[in-house]
Parts: sequence; structure tokens; C-alpha cells
Amino acid sequence: MTAAGDPQTGGRAGEPALVTFGEAMGVVASTEPGPLAVGGAARLSFAGAEATVAIGVSRLGHRAAWVGRVGDDAVGAMVLSGLRGEGVDISGARVEPDVPTGLMLRERRTADRTRVAYYRRDLAGSRLSPADVDAEVIAQARVLHLTGITPALSDTALAAVRETVRVAKAAGVAVSIDVNYRALLWARTAASAVLGSLVPQADIVFAGPEEASLLVAEDEPERMARALGALGPATTVLKLGAEGALVHAGGEVLVQSAFPVTCVDPIGAGDAFVAGYLAGTLDGSDAARCLRLAAACGAFAVSAAGDWEGLPRRGDLRLLDAADVSR
Amino acid sequence: MTAAGDPQTGGRAGEPALVTFGEAMGVVASTEPGPLAVGGAARLSFAGAEATVAIGVSRLGHRAAWVGRVGDDAVGAMVLSGLRGEGVDISGARVEPDVPTGLMLRERRTADRTRVAYYRRDLAGSRLSPADVDAEVIAQARVLHLTGITPALSDTALAAVRETVRVAKAAGVAVSIDVNYRALLWARTAASAVLGSLVPQADIVFAGPEEASLLVAEDEPERMARALGALGPATTVLKLGAEGALVHAGGEVLVQSAFPVTCVDPIGAGDAFVAGYLAGTLDGSDAARCLRLAAACGAFAVSAAGDWEGLPRRGDLRLLDAADVSR
Amino acid sequence: MTAAGDPQTGGRAGEPALVTFGEAMGVVASTEPGPLAVGGAARLSFAGAEATVAIGVSRLGHRAAWVGRVGDDAVGAMVLSGLRGEGVDISGARVEPDVPTGLMLRERRTADRTRVAYYRRDLAGSRLSPADVDAEVIAQARVLHLTGITPALSDTALAAVRETVRVAKAAGVAVSIDVNYRALLWARTAASAVLGSLVPQADIVFAGPEEASLLVAEDEPERMARALGALGPATTVLKLGAEGALVHAGGEVLVQSAFPVTCVDPIGAGDAFVAGYLAGTLDGSDAARCLRLAAACGAFAVSAAGDWEGLPRRGDLRLLDAADVSR
Amino acid sequence: MTAAGDPQTGGRAGEPALVTFGEAMGVVASTEPGPLAVGGAARLSFAGAEATVAIGVSRLGHRAAWVGRVGDDAVGAMVLSGLRGEGVDISGARVEPDVPTGLMLRERRTADRTRVAYYRRDLAGSRLSPADVDAEVIAQARVLHLTGITPALSDTALAAVRETVRVAKAAGVAVSIDVNYRALLWARTAASAVLGSLVPQADIVFAGPEEASLLVAEDEPERMARALGALGPATTVLKLGAEGALVHAGGEVLVQSAFPVTCVDPIGAGDAFVAGYLAGTLDGSDAARCLRLAAACGAFAVSAAGDWEGLPRRGDLRLLDAADVSR
Amino acid sequence: MTAAGDPQTGGRAGEPALVTFGEAMGVVASTEPGPLAVGGAARLSFAGAEATVAIGVSRLGHRAAWVGRVGDDAVGAMVLSGLRGEGVDISGARVEPDVPTGLMLRERRTADRTRVAYYRRDLAGSRLSPADVDAEVIAQARVLHLTGITPALSDTALAAVRETVRVAKAAGVAVSIDVNYRALLWARTAASAVLGSLVPQADIVFAGPEEASLLVAEDEPERMARALGALGPATTVLKLGAEGALVHAGGEVLVQSAFPVTCVDPIGAGDAFVAGYLAGTLDGSDAARCLRLAAACGAFAVSAAGDWEGLPRRGDLRLLDAADVSR
Amino acid sequence: MTAAGDPQTGGRAGEPALVTFGEAMGVVASTEPGPLAVGGAARLSFAGAEATVAIGVSRLGHRAAWVGRVGDDAVGAMVLSGLRGEGVDISGARVEPDVPTGLMLRERRTADRTRVAYYRRDLAGSRLSPADVDAEVIAQARVLHLTGITPALSDTALAAVRETVRVAKAAGVAVSIDVNYRALLWARTAASAVLGSLVPQADIVFAGPEEASLLVAEDEPERMARALGALGPATTVLKLGAEGALVHAGGEVLVQSAFPVTCVDPIGAGDAFVAGYLAGTLDGSDAARCLRLAAACGAFAVSAAGDWEGLPRRGDLRLLDAADVSR
Repeated sequence: MTAAGDPQTGGRAGEPALVTFGEAMGVVASTEPGPLAVGGAARLSFAGAEATVAIGVSRLGHRAAWVGRVGDDAVGAMVLSGLRGEGVDISGARVEPDVPTGLMLRERRTADRTRVAYYRRDLAGSRLSPADVDAEVIAQARVLHLTGITPALSDTALAAVRETVRVAKAAGVAVSIDVNYRALLWARTAASAVLGSLVPQADIVFAGPEEASLLVAEDEPERMARALGALGPATTVLKLGAEGALVHAGGEVLVQSAFPVTCVDPIGAGDAFVAGYLAGTLDGSDAARCLRLAAACGAFAVSAAGDWEGLPRRGDLRLLDAADVSR
Repeated sequence: MTAAGDPQTGGRAGEPALVTFGEAMGVVASTEPGPLAVGGAARLSFAGAEATVAIGVSRLGHRAAWVGRVGDDAVGAMVLSGLRGEGVDISGARVEPDVPTGLMLRERRTADRTRVAYYRRDLAGSRLSPADVDAEVIAQARVLHLTGITPALSDTALAAVRETVRVAKAAGVAVSIDVNYRALLWARTAASAVLGSLVPQADIVFAGPEEASLLVAEDEPERMARALGALGPATTVLKLGAEGALVHAGGEVLVQSAFPVTCVDPIGAGDAFVAGYLAGTLDGSDAARCLRLAAACGAFAVSAAGDWEGLPRRGDLRLLDAADVSR
Repeated sequence: MTAAGDPQTGGRAGEPALVTFGEAMGVVASTEPGPLAVGGAARLSFAGAEATVAIGVSRLGHRAAWVGRVGDDAVGAMVLSGLRGEGVDISGARVEPDVPTGLMLRERRTADRTRVAYYRRDLAGSRLSPADVDAEVIAQARVLHLTGITPALSDTALAAVRETVRVAKAAGVAVSIDVNYRALLWARTAASAVLGSLVPQADIVFAGPEEASLLVAEDEPERMARALGALGPATTVLKLGAEGALVHAGGEVLVQSAFPVTCVDPIGAGDAFVAGYLAGTLDGSDAARCLRLAAACGAFAVSAAGDWEGLPRRGDLRLLDAADVSR
Repeated sequence: MTAAGDPQTGGRAGEPALVTFGEAMGVVASTEPGPLAVGGAARLSFAGAEATVAIGVSRLGHRAAWVGRVGDDAVGAMVLSGLRGEGVDISGARVEPDVPTGLMLRERRTADRTRVAYYRRDLAGSRLSPADVDAEVIAQARVLHLTGITPALSDTALAAVRETVRVAKAAGVAVSIDVNYRALLWARTAASAVLGSLVPQADIVFAGPEEASLLVAEDEPERMARALGALGPATTVLKLGAEGALVHAGGEVLVQSAFPVTCVDPIGAGDAFVAGYLAGTLDGSDAARCLRLAAACGAFAVSAAGDWEGLPRRGDLRLLDAADVSR
Repeated sequence: MTAAGDPQTGGRAGEPALVTFGEAMGVVASTEPGPLAVGGAARLSFAGAEATVAIGVSRLGHRAAWVGRVGDDAVGAMVLSGLRGEGVDISGARVEPDVPTGLMLRERRTADRTRVAYYRRDLAGSRLSPADVDAEVIAQARVLHLTGITPALSDTALAAVRETVRVAKAAGVAVSIDVNYRALLWARTAASAVLGSLVPQADIVFAGPEEASLLVAEDEPERMARALGALGPATTVLKLGAEGALVHAGGEVLVQSAFPVTCVDPIGAGDAFVAGYLAGTLDGSDAARCLRLAAACGAFAVSAAGDWEGLPRRGDLRLLDAADVSR
Repeated sequence: MTAAGDPQTGGRAGEPALVTFGEAMGVVASTEPGPLAVGGAARLSFAGAEATVAIGVSRLGHRAAWVGRVGDDAVGAMVLSGLRGEGVDISGARVEPDVPTGLMLRERRTADRTRVAYYRRDLAGSRLSPADVDAEVIAQARVLHLTGITPALSDTALAAVRETVRVAKAAGVAVSIDVNYRALLWARTAASAVLGSLVPQADIVFAGPEEASLLVAEDEPERMARALGALGPATTVLKLGAEGALVHAGGEVLVQSAFPVTCVDPIGAGDAFVAGYLAGTLDGSDAARCLRLAAACGAFAVSAAGDWEGLPRRGDLRLLDAADVSR
């Protein structure tokens, strides 16, 4: 018999081991492939790279906190209730009375291709500011996780990000950054400048090859990882999509292939991967086991609709090895 | 054997008998009553008071044109394709390359109550401007239909509305205005000032009791209708929801009760009512028959999901009288 | 701007104002009226009278805790995640490693009639025992809520119930009991004996007329309420379904009619009513306002599928008064 | 413990107590109110007045046989499998190798109104002929049930109907006829002539008021029933839809009101009513009990989608009296 | 800012560049793999090889006209509204008052295999006749597109096809023929005779290998294409399904492989391919680019349910090259 | 024209060629991949290894009987109606008045992995006993089919199994056993002991490699098959999942690969395989043709949701060879 109050099942006890700051938005995703059409069906959910990481870490048994702002509306309530249901600490989140929560509309144009329209500019998520940074919560955590999305939302959000890094460094808390470049939010030059000032302060950095090229002049994964490491981070992880991933840590390079699973919805796989890696770190695992847990999380994430809905709990992990269920 | 090219079934021939200017937006409507929830189902469509009127008039066999702006995106394509499918002339519509089409998110909070969040501010629909007014098209029409929503969208939209009225009056084209006050778009004082300058120029005006009170000091439907008439319009129609409607024309007042039908989705009933009334006018019907057609359109509109999807074609009207289909 | 950490939006702070002990089960409810059939659709959720009360109180802004046992399985995870998402404190809940969480299968036999098959005997929920009673949590609460279901689950569950009452009385915490007689769990004579020993210790008791007749010899609602009151409870509330409700408190009797709403799913209305009444009590409202809030919760509960999904947040309550949403 | 082989649960034993001859077709019914639209959803099933009667009688525990022809296709297989699943004896049914099974497309134009397009002319069902009449099976039955649809299908079908009546009369088997006039199949004059020759041979006749006027000159239900009785049938039943029904038997007239239930799909109510009445007759009940069982079957039929899917088994009947399931 | 009235977005201006004559039917397609079953779900749409080509060409920005006959019923209205919504000119279409629009019922027997039952014999589509041929419209077009289905519908339809070819040849309009042999409509010998007289008059001909063998004695794709070319057409295109396609033009042979996409619904791929090829021709592209556009259209067509719903607009084409959308 | 009363289409005539004894349960299967969640959708059906075999054999045209017990509830009615609809003889089935029919809840955790919770212990299915064994029915059959599940249900079920074998051997009826080891029902040692006493009496035995290792010490398929054969069965079949199957009969070994089809739901494939093999045996086919029919049944079974819903009728088999349906 287990108490439901441990981190695995949620409850009051304990300070967050991971803290993250970001934007979470409503998602309207058309469910049947094809152009949007009158009478078409859609599925509602919410998304946000940092929220996905927090949920993934929480499902794997480590307390995680998400800080951000939502509107005082149905979408905002869905975001907060959803995070709380996953055991994520939202005591630092804020509700904006005057602007709506952002929304993204995903058109599943074909079975394999999605197009997104964003309704987020100047909405609640962009109001994140240094006032949202609770130094005490960060100082008690073991990892601060950030992405390249949050600094692109607004000047106040960028200031908040810089403040979180300052607090974490001062308290000796590890800083994790996922480059997560979003072309719709800012130009490569702007991103390059800001991320170039943040990444050197990180202890661990995640990037895809195109994202890495914002920061380093290499064009081959392993060399990219080494070059990113040379900027400062002790650990650099290259996410290579269906090809798997590669980590550079302590001068060594390890590779991990992706698990072969049927993909239902590829969106969110990268954030799930980060969640798995950071959960592995919090477990105290070595890089190889972190990579494997990261890949497993990516596999689960693509196995269900939604960015985070498919993420694994500990007990789910053994399913990846299971033989077929047919009889 | 009938040619499909007549107004009933669509085709190239003929100038629009009715022209309307307005905004059309995507609609995401949750389908199951209750708070928005992760994994919940939604239905996609589009809406806009003027678009509903144009569709309603077109389904009843009169050529109608809709003028407005949409974004160069999936929602905009759905709006234009949907209007065109209903036989509405969209040759005066414009596609904005840089801003998205607006969106509204409808939460069906209970079986009877809906809450709406709008994503429309500064988006494509608000870009309507006097440049969109084609004087020739208006001059060849028999009715120009406007609502109190369009002037509230932006300064350029208001200017466009004023320009359409000027052109219509000059050409002797009847002007129809539905007050359609939207509290989320402007204050009652602002609405009162603008609508107070437009309504006197109208030949026919539609309003609910609360809307009428923006313009006249009465508080009883019949007196409201007479007072509105005193402002100028030869015909004034009070929409009384489930209680039916009342028209004041030629000094006389007629009343019409609502048809007793099972309501599936009440939204759009008022615009459907206007479509029926104006179609009756284009038929050359007297006020009593216009009112009856208006009420029939309202009944059909609430009989299906979506603002306009349930609107009747001529052949559908006889169903209202039909005995039950059971056997 | 509001902190999301207040009771309304969930967070870490604060001790529960209401504590309840009970069983929560998975629910499989067929969605289309008619006999169960191969290929038929069902909706998944969870239910439990006490869980519904905790969720209802939490949505209305008071911190509530639910204590009970679930299995280490998918249904148990759904229960815990669902409760946590609604802001209910589940730190006292337990996960049983060896027995599954109970399940109920609801056949929607007609649009108006449901039949239920239970799979609960000897399963996780029935393992509730005095070991689950945390005297400190009860002592810090303002209301202990119990139902007539929990004592019928097992001997250990009955012992747990008795222990909670003992602790609450000792600490001066108000005891609320909803008679909630379940014929499938025990005979009327057994129920009468056990509930006859519990109700006199309650400060507030809820019952339907048939349930009240387990305890008192009257057969008219008002006399039933007075007779229940004579057993001890300062407040007695008769739930009369579509006829509304009646409260006897301080020698006075008040009545409340039900709100006229379209009913989507009547199950859970009674528990929602209790949640509203107790939330009103925690608000410090008088009996009339408590009754009105109770009726409002009942109205919202029947307005959505599921026992608790439709329950109102504070901001939803104004919708009951809103005019129709048509335009 | 009950053997599943009794008529209630199906099995091999026993000769049919009721035999019926007719057409069964596939049904495609749009599920959401509104005009048929691309991407719209439909529900598949099958229908046929005689099949509904056979299913209804079988569900109530009397062995029933259906005789008719279907095509060698997916729809035909669905019809036969569906009937067999309901315990109906289909050993006299035939599979036509060369023509498809008929189909009807039901457009749910509004929540209350349905329009039907038939694809049945010259298809498998119309091939019914005297070769399908097994005199031995009829002679061992207690009731032969016919409708006014079958004789309108084709000359061979009419000949088959006449042959069944001849056989039944010769063997002393009761003949039941439901007038069931279908305007799309034949003119009133043609129907009047054929039915006028059949009804006098019937022992029990069912009709709606408009149908009765094909045969008798009265226009008031009770007088219609008496006039129909004067043609020959010992029992005449007027089906009055939502107003209930009226029976004339043994010189007396009894009335029965409809049960108040939420109607999901009115189609099939009349056939369900007949099934209930005939099952009552097979039970040996008096007219009043037959009427009540008939009304109950009608109530269940409208409580589920499809013509026959909602029909009650014996154990379901008590649900009509049950109190609400809310708690 | 773009005018919505250009061919891309629909509007009044311009004569059709492509004209096609054929049958369009309603489609009822079961959505879940397996045998048709009571209560099973189906999706409604319409189909017709020529309609798919017209829609495909219209979506790619060239004005296309479809000529054919539908019934005065819900299915016919769906066909016309659907075509019009896609910007197809239907001013030459006719509504038959007395016969229904045809229907096809598709059973998705397994995830990969579909079986079809047709309800089309003697229905509206087969009434196409030379009276439907508007010589002026053909003469102003750049391509007349025909299939081997239309001449098999009826004698009048065959006469209409012959008349269109005569008019086109006289006016110097290019003739395109897709062999599209349908075994359910006519025997190979009959098809061979009729198509053998039509294909030599074509400028471009499309066929699958089995279809080509109706006309030429070869059995290898490239030789088939050359042999077809020897009959007269300057361009011959062999459709090879998942293997791609091959074109013979100007003495040269080009091949094109299929795009690797997840297939949702293979039906309609061949017609989509033709639409792409003809749109390329109207673009003025060379054979290689036409082939590539044809393959792209095929890829989009199979990426959504329905024959034509997935067809690409110009802006969609770039999605085929896009990297995965995961992050 | 075919009589529907032959085994293919169901009817009264004929004694079962195959008799099987087992448990059938309701199935609730979540339809969307991911963890069970509130509001999630599920599909209802029933399952049971022996029921699947009986349905498969019946669909292929041989009369089959299923014997077992269900509760007097909605699930039990669904089981019996479903079996009867498939033409399975259920005259030997029994309805238990006091215990519910068992239920299994399948969580589709990812697109490829399912987890099951069983609610079956001590429920109706386990009440199977020697009293259910009708020696006459077995003696008239050609095959008695059993699985390793039934003896694990209860002592009485094991006794029933032993009795059926005794009767069959005495009457010279072939005995078929599918090892079907279920780890949740009993330990390998217990299974090994019981199955070790049953398998030597079988004429044909089916097993997967892990199951075979309960009985023989080999670990390579062919050697396993030979070793199983050495225990007694003239025919032993190794089911190798996606790798196909292998049969040992008459000293020879044959292999069969699986048909390449898109898998929708792998569950039930093994039982479908057995159904196909036994139907082949009843056809009088040799081992190679039996194997091929078995593989075909497996392919159809995985092509639809549910354990048995996709199983082929004779006419369906040709679809496996058909070319793609695209055009």
C-alpha cells in the first residue's frame, strides 16, 4: 500500500525539484486529415514546451513547478486544472484578469503534416515578468529549466528569464536550456544574440541541428555538440528526431536511437525527450541512462494525441519492451 | 428539369440582389456540455452576422454578396469556400496576407448556456475599409444590409459602413440595419452615437428590446418599434426571441410568434430571422408574410448546430407544417 | 492579477476546510440510449458520492480533501489525477497494490433511464480502514462529510467512519452525513441500524424522502425534516429531486425549487446539491443562501455528462441568470 | 439458472408463434440535424416494418419468423445477422444473387423532422413471391402478421401476401394486418382496392387515422375503429401517435395514452406498438393489457436511435415505472 | 492583399479553362474497418471521377466546369453545394425532378480493402444527354476532360460524350480521356469498342495497365504507353498506383515515383493524379513538371478521407517537402 | 437464390460440427491511445477465446456451438445476442441469476500496446460446471474445441473440461486444444500440470512458443512442434505471431507466413487463426490449406477493432488477393 501523497501520485508534500517558466496555450487540433472544413471535428487541449517538460518530469516521480500566466477564462482554467491534475505545482502561476489565454489552431492537413495558426500576441502568456520569479522556490530546486521560446514572448518575459538564471546561478541550481527556436516569434539574428548570452550560463543545453547552428558554426551533430559544450554547458544534447539523439558530456559522446513505435502525433516529442533526460538527471542516472529515458519519453509522447498526454509514468516504461499483446 | 445555374442552385448568372459588408470568423465550438477539458471535442465552422444573412437569403433563392476580409490561412479558406458553397457571391471579398482570420471559441458550459472568447482584435476582419466598397455592385442591388457590429470593428470599417450607406442612398437602394449591439466591442454610449447616425438613414431596422433602448427611450416592444420608426425607417422589426417578433410598418403593427421546434443551438437565430425577412422583401411579400418567413428561418437555424448550417432552402419550408415522421 | 495558488485555482497552501472519506470507482457509461451492443460507444470517468462533494466544494473555492483507496491501475490513476486536477487534496489517499479499483458500468437504456452493474465487491475502495483516518487533518477542518455508502462497503470501512466521527466530535468539527442509501450494498434493516447510530451525531444531515424513512416514521417532507432534526442534527435537508429541496434549521423550514435547466445526465445531482450546501456553509451563508447555492450546483451537475464534470466554479454561477445566448 | 435456449435468449427449440413477410432494407441515417453535408456523420442499420414487429415479439419472449429476400451483399448480411441476433427465425429468408438489398437514406433535416430517399425499386426485397410461402410454417404459427407495404412492392409480393392469407385462414391461424400506407409506393386508390380486399380477412387490424380513411368513411377515431370492425376484424386498433391509441374489440372501446418519455428517434414507434400488442395477444392478455404493452413498446422504441434497437425485453418493462436515477 | 474573386479563391469572373461531363453520386462510407454492422458509423460525401478532376483543377487555380445531372433531393443539393464551394462552375449542371441522385455504399471491410455497392442504375446521373452539351462553353475552354465511365452510363450519356468530342475537335480544344474502365457498368468488349473509337481522337489519354490492355496488345507499361500514343494521342500517361506513373510524349518517356505519404483513403488517387497533370498542362508546364504535380495531387488525395477532400491548393504543395512537424 | 437457412447465413437446421466450452466477458476498450482519462471514449464488445473460435468457424459456414454461463444483465444479453447474430448455437448456454457477467477493461496505452484489467473472479463465467456438458451434442459434433483458459477459471470449470474430453474420446470426436496460457489466472506450474494431462488426449493442439514450453523442453519452434506431437496429438500447430505459423502433422512440418495487412487491433489474432485452421479441417482440407485459411483469418481479425468482429465470411477471403481499390 502506497501513500498517494508521494510525488508519483501527487499530494502536498515537498518542494519542487524542477522549476520552469513559460507560456501555455489552448490547442484546437483538427482530428481528421484534410483542410479545415465546416462541421469538422477538433480536439481540445493545451500546450507549451515548458509545461510538457514539467508534466513529463512529474509523471516520472519528481516534483515539478510551472510558472506562467493565463487568462481568467475557460482556456486558462483548462491549463491550470490540467497541470494540477498531472501533479505539477502551479502555486507560482498567475491569472490575468484582462487578456485571454493564447490559443493555437492546428490543421492536420495530411496524415503526416500539420499547420498551425497562433493567437498569442500580447495575450496572457506574454505578460510573464520578473515579478513572477520567486527566488526561494528556485533556490530550493535542483534544476531550472528554460526554453528559447519564453525570451521571445515579450521584453518582460525576457527579463524574467534573465532573472531566473541569475537566481539559479547564485544558488548553485543547475540551469537547463532547450534552444527551441520559433521562427514565428523572432528572427534568427535576434534569437542568436539572446540565446548566445544565455546558453553559456547553462549546465545542460538541448538543441536540434538547425537550432544549434544559431550558436555554433558546425554542421555535423557530434561537432555541434562539442562546440556547444565549448560555450560552457557541461552537457549538450543534440535531438535528431527519428534518428535519435546524441549527448556530449565529460568529453565523451554517446548516441541513442529512437524506439520504433507507431506514431500517432509527432508534436511534443522533443519536449518529452527533454523531460525524460532531466528526470534521469534527477534520478541521478548517468548520461546513457538519461538518454535512454529521454528516448522512451519521446516514444510515448508520439504514441498518443496531444503534446504531453502520452507521457509515461514509471510503470509504463516496461511496456516498451513488452511483446505484442495479441493472442 | 431545372438548370442548376439559377439562383436557387448557384451559378454564374446575375447581379446580387442583396449586398452586405462585415466580418466572418472561424468558430471552435465545444460539442459536449461542460467546462472545456483536455481531450474534449469541438466542431469547426465559421460565423458572422452578415454572412449568416447572406447565406440565408441565398438559400431562399436570391443572389447575395458578402464583402469582407479574411486572412491567408486555413480559417480564411474555410470561410470563403463555405460562403461560395452556399451560393454567396464573394467576388468582393479580400484576402489579407499578413494577419490571421479571427476566431471565436465557444464553450458550451451547460446544455443551455454558451460562453465565448474572441480572438479578433486587429485581425483580418477589422481591416475592412472604404477601399472595399464597390459602388457599382451596391447600385445594382436591391438591398444593402448592415449590422451594428461592423462599425465597431475599426475606424476603417466604420468609414466603409458610412460609405456604403452614402452610395446606397444615392442609388436609391434600400438600406437594412440590424442593431446587433456587441458589448465586448464598444460601450453603449459609443454605439448609441454611431448607430444613432446610421439608423435614421435606414429603410428597415431590426433590433432586440435591449438594443432598441440604445436609440429610443421606450421600454415596451410596440412603443419601441413606433419610436424607432419615428427616427426614419419605414419598417422596424423587434426581435423578441422565444416570444417571436413584432413589425411596425405603414403605421401598423403585426406580431408573429416563434415556431415551436426543438432547439439544438440557439446561436444565429436572430440573423436567420433577418435573412428570412429580407428574403421575403425581395420576394415582394407583405409584412405579414415576411414575418412568417423570418420566423421560419429562425426555427430552422436553431434546429441544427452552427449559426447558419440549418437555414432553409425553399423546399424545406414545408417541413415546418409536416406531421410527425413516426410510423 | 490573481495568484493561482489560492483555493480557487489550486496550489499548495492551506489546510482542507472539508474532509471526506469514501470510495471512488471508474465509470463506463454507454453514451447512446438503447441496450448495450457490440460496437457501442461509452464514456470513461470516475464517480463516488464523496468525491463529487469534494470536487464541488473545491470548485467553489474551499479546500477539500478526499480520503480513500484505489488500485495500482489505470482506473486508480485516473481517479487520483482527476481529483487532483480539481484541486482536491489527495494526500491522505492510498494505493492498494493487489486489488483493482472498482468499476461501474452504466447502460443508458433509454434517454431517461440508466441501469448500473457494479464491479466493486472486495476491491480497493472497500479496504478503507481506521488506519486511513488522520486525526490531525480532521481536527484542522471545519466540516467532516460522510455518506451512507461508506459504512456499507466493509467492516473496516464502517470502523473508519465511526473513527472519523469520534475524532470530529472530539475536535468540535461539524459532521455532515448524506444518508445515500444503496439497496445493492445492504438491506434496509442493516442500514437503518448503522445510520441510526450515526445520524444523531451529525450536525447536518441530507436525505431523500425514501432515505429519511429509514430513520423516521413520517412520510411528508416537512415532517420528515423536523423528525430528523429531533434525532439531533441542527440542520436537516430533504432533497426532493425535480421538486427542489427543503431545509429545517433553527426550528424554521425553508423551501427551494429546482432551477429549470435542460438535463443532460441526472446522475450526481444529489451529491452536487450537498456540495453546494456545504460550500455555502463554509462561505458563512444563511440557510436560504446555502439552499440556493445547493440548487444551483444541482442544476449545473445535470447540465453535463458525468457525476461531477458539470459542477460550477464561482464565476459560472451567474450563467444561471443569464438571458439566452441567441442573437 | 436459466437455459439460454428458451425463446427469451434464443436457441434452436420451437416453432415460431408469429410469422411475418416483408421487405427489410439498409438504413443510412444522418446523425446531426441539418442538411446532408460533406463529411457529415451517419449511422447504419436496417429497417422494415415487419422486421421490427418480429424483433419486438421475439424480445418479449415469443418465437417469431421473418420471411423476405435480401441481396448477396454487405447490407443483406447485416439484415440477416441483425435479425438472427435478435432471435428471429430467418430460416425462410432468401438471398438473391443478382440484385442489391434496398437502402434508405434518412436526412435528419431538423431535430424533429426527417426526410427519406429510397433506393428500393426492383431490388431484392421486391422479389418476394409465392414461392417464399411455406404453408407448414404458417400453419404451425398462432399469428400471421402482414402490412400494407408488402403488397405494394411488386406483383409477386402481392401474390405472396394473398397466398399467406389463404394458408392462414385455411389453418385457422389469426391474421394481423397493419395498414401502413406508403404514398411513395402506390396511390391511395390502388392501396384502397388491395387493402379493401385483405382487411376483411384479418382478425386484427392496425391503422392510423389517415390510413383508416382509405377503408372507411369516418373521420373520428372511435367511429373509424368501429367501422373497420364492421368490415370483419374482431379487433381494430387505431394508432394515434403522441395521443396514444384506441382499440375496438368485442363491441367495446378502450383507450391508452402514450407513456411520457424523452423521444430520441420517433421512427418505428408504430411498428413497435404493433409488436407489443401482438406479443400481448400471444401472452393471452386481454385488450387493456395488450394496449398497455403496445404503448410501452412504442415508448421504448422512440427512446433509442433506429427503428427497433430500443425495443424492450421483458425485464426492461419495469424501467418505465422507475423513479429517476439521479441521486 | 488579394481579391478573392480570382480563380484561386472563387468568384464570378472568367470562362472555364477545363470542362468535364460526368456523373456525381452520394457516398456513404463506413468509417471503421470491418463488416457493416448495426449502429456502425459512416461518413457522407459525394464522388465522381470527373467531379474530382474539376475540383482538383479548381483548387490549383484554374477555372473548371462540371456538367451533369443530379436529382432534386438532399444528395443532389450536397453535390452541387460541394462543387460550388470548391469553385467549380456548375452553371451547366441540371436538376432532374423525378429520379434520385445515385448513391454508393462503401464498406471498409479491412483497413486496406473496400467493397462498394452502387445505387445508380437509371438514376439522375445516367440522364446526361447531348442536350447538356453547350458548344460555346466547350469552345472557350482549353481542355475537355472525359472518362470511360460516362459513356457506359446510358445511350444518351454516350451520345453526349461523342457530341462533346465533336465540338472540341471542331474548336481546336484539347481532349483528355481517362480510360477509367468500370467492370460493373459494361463488359470489356463493349468498353473496348467504344473507347477504341474515342481514344484516337484524344490529345492526352490516361490509363492503368489493365485499362490500357483494353486498347493495346502490350503488357509492359512503357510499351503500352507507346502503343497508346500510336493510336493518336500526343501524350499518354500510365498510372501505376504505388509505383508512380510514366508518360510518353514527343517520343520520350518519363517516369515519376509516388510520394511517400501515409495513406488514409486510397480511393480517388487516380483522379487526383489526372487533375494534377491537367492543371500542370494549363500552367504551361512541361511533361516532367506535370507528372510531378500529378503525383503530388495523388499524394494529397490519399492523405484524407474522401475522393477529393484532400486535394491540394497551391499553397499546400510545399508541405510535401517540409520536414517533420515534431519538436 | 440461396436459402438463408444454410449454415452460412444462419437458421435452424443442423447439428453443430464444432462444440466449444468457455467464458465470454464484456469488453470495454479505450479507443484513443494514451492513459485512461476522464471523458475518454471506449468501445463496447465481448470477448472470449472459445467464442471467437465459434464465431470464426460459423462465419466460414460450419455450424458451431458455444457453451458457457453469463449473468442476467446487459453484458450477458450482449454476449448471447452477439453470438446468436453470428449464427453460433447458444442453446447450451446458461444465464446465472445472481452474479454479473465478467468484464475486461482494455487501456490502449499506446498505438501498439494494450493493458488489461479483469473483473472476472467468481463471476458468471467461472460457474461453468459438468452440469453444462450435454454428451449428446458433443457426440454428434466432429470437433470439440477447448482452451487452457477454461480449466483455470474454477474447479467446476476444470471438471467440466475433463468431462467434455471424456465424452468426446468415447464418441470418437476429435479434440482440439489451444494452450492459451493466462498468467493472471494461474501459475505456470499449475497450468503445466493440468495441461500436461489434457494435451496428450488431444488430436490437435495449438500453442505459441512460450506456451509450448509449459509442456515440452524444446525452445525452437519446429522441435517444439515435434515434441508436442510426441505427447500424442496427431497435429500440432505453433503460432508464431507476425512470423506466421508452423504445423507438424503426419511426421511432416509445413510453414506459413502471415499475410501482410494493416493491423488495426492485434487482439484475437491467435483465436482467429485457430478458427481458420479448424474450419479448414471441417472443410476436409489438407494441412497446407488449413494453415493458409488460418493465416487468412488472423489477417482479417487484426483488420478491425475487436477480437472477432473482423473475421471473414467465405466471400471475404478473396479480398486478401485483390489489388488495391484506388483508382
